[in-house]
Amino acid sequence: MKEDIYFLGIDGGGSHCRARLESADGRLLGRGFGGPANPCYGLDLAMRSIEKAAAAALADAGLPPGLMDRLRVGAGVAGLHLPRYRDAMCNASHPFEQLVLTDDLHIACLGAHGGGDGAVIIVGTGFSALSVVDGVAHTIGAHGFMMGEACSGAHIGFAAVNAALLAYDRLGQETLLAELLGRELGGEGLMLANALAGATADRYAALAPVVFEAAERGDAVAGRILREAAAFIDRVAQRLLERDPPRLSLVGGIAERIVPWLAPDIAARLLPAEAPAEVGAIHLAREGIAPAPTSIPETGISS
Amino acid sequence: MKEDIYFLGIDGGGSHCRARLESADGRLLGRGFGGPANPCYGLDLAMRSIEKAAAAALADAGLPPGLMDRLRVGAGVAGLHLPRYRDAMCNASHPFEQLVLTDDLHIACLGAHGGGDGAVIIVGTGFSALSVVDGVAHTIGAHGFMMGEACSGAHIGFAAVNAALLAYDRLGQETLLAELLGRELGGEGLMLANALAGATADRYAALAPVVFEAAERGDAVAGRILREAAAFIDRVAQRLLERDPPRLSLVGGIAERIVPWLAPDIAARLLPAEAPAEVGAIHLAREGIAPAPTSIPETGISS
Repeated sequence: MKEDIYFLGIDGGGSHCRARLESADGRLLGRGFGGPANPCYGLDLAMRSIEKAAAAALADAGLPPGLMDRLRVGAGVAGLHLPRYRDAMCNASHPFEQLVLTDDLHIACLGAHGGGDGAVIIVGTGFSALSVVDGVAHTIGAHGFMMGEACSGAHIGFAAVNAALLAYDRLGQETLLAELLGRELGGEGLMLANALAGATADRYAALAPVVFEAAERGDAVAGRILREAAAFIDRVAQRLLERDPPRLSLVGGIAERIVPWLAPDIAARLLPAEAPAEVGAIHLAREGIAPAPTSIPETGISS
Repeated sequence: MKEDIYFLGIDGGGSHCRARLESADGRLLGRGFGGPANPCYGLDLAMRSIEKAAAAALADAGLPPGLMDRLRVGAGVAGLHLPRYRDAMCNASHPFEQLVLTDDLHIACLGAHGGGDGAVIIVGTGFSALSVVDGVAHTIGAHGFMMGEACSGAHIGFAAVNAALLAYDRLGQETLLAELLGRELGGEGLMLANALAGATADRYAALAPVVFEAAERGDAVAGRILREAAAFIDRVAQRLLERDPPRLSLVGGIAERIVPWLAPDIAARLLPAEAPAEVGAIHLAREGIAPAPTSIPETGISS
């Protein structure tokens, strides 16, 4: 029966994942949340986070949990452009009728531009960017924790911790960041390092608001970190615009606060995303197979 | 019986640990090696690495493994200046007669200066520095993977990967590092990030020789990474020399290769370490309690 088919879109980020449940005729039925879905924290945790978000969306819709095996799921998951994680996740068992997997960048672009051509820059816990023009995709970044980027929330938080430690050791300029991070994490110098030993990307990204606060209060070191992050985003935008995408959007947890730091000509080119990434994931769920962006080898696998 | 007492010194680094076995009257009896001893990779692994190095030293000395419980052990372990790791490790069970624990920096300084005053800069997998003058200790760095430093092997390796990824995305200058790291790790761009996803500090430190090779072949980006690392070490040396230590030594895996990049007046102040860190650890084993450097709160705990 037609009414027994449900479509679920999952935006699986490094910090948490978000689910959107729709009926066959496109009505929003419910929403749900789960934990981190990036398989770099472990495949089991990622799959559990997705299942938890799906269960929460069913509950939100007032539907029984037993409908899990009737869900046609599209999921965009952080880190899934890397073969090591994609292979593991595509082979993992799941309770759904169908699970179409791609990376989070791909669904953000589908969502931002209504499934059409366009470019998107994600600055959340991590950084990545994608343009899709006339069916040709071009990816920038998405290399993982602080690799090949200088603008993600994790990078900004890490740079702030670094600056505070250098100031503590009298190897770098004094900064308000030392005091603010010390208050946030319960100690400076040794105790700051102690609090953050083994910290993951989302832990550093959670410190990014402290950098904005320090910069707004006139701290030169925090200002430099944000100016460098913004200049990096400017360069990324220029690379994407070389391919003439009809639309360009900046999305993710720190997007809104970094805009005033961008070059005015870049900021003027930004258009709001039409819909969030989980709506892009619904596109995938409905199509049943992920149209692979060509510059991401073998991305978008139906299982 | 006097001849039944054995002293074992352990230099427990982030990549591997080294043991030195001496008789009660100070004769070298044997040496041994074990895996990583930094408890940031897990307390069990760290304790196993130390026990493995101890067992290997006993075997090297032609002594039976049953003598483990006759060993008086002094161990300097990377990361142990951080309370979270020190507390865990000091409460761990061990098979020795006695285990005196401190951090790796402390035993490096004891070894380098024959147990006397002096200063030491360690640039191996990580970075840390210590001066001990008239019983007053002053620590710099030792904050953990790439935190508050710009000169460790891990930092240099990470900076190289970063530069290669930025070049790949046309966001940074072209560099020979892209080719050399690509050869080392089996791919560029996406595949480089794939190979290094979740990599630990020692993995990045293992890439540092590639940076020296590229710089020696005239690569500007590699040269800049090494100049910045050397300038950082210069600043650290200046801080240490403000306290007038009678001796200053630079030790660790990349010490020898970075010396030509240092400022000439700093390089001229360096004296070779008198003995390696495991000899410093033997000092601890013989004293039975660790004389805590005052700037490292509560470091050096006998258990």
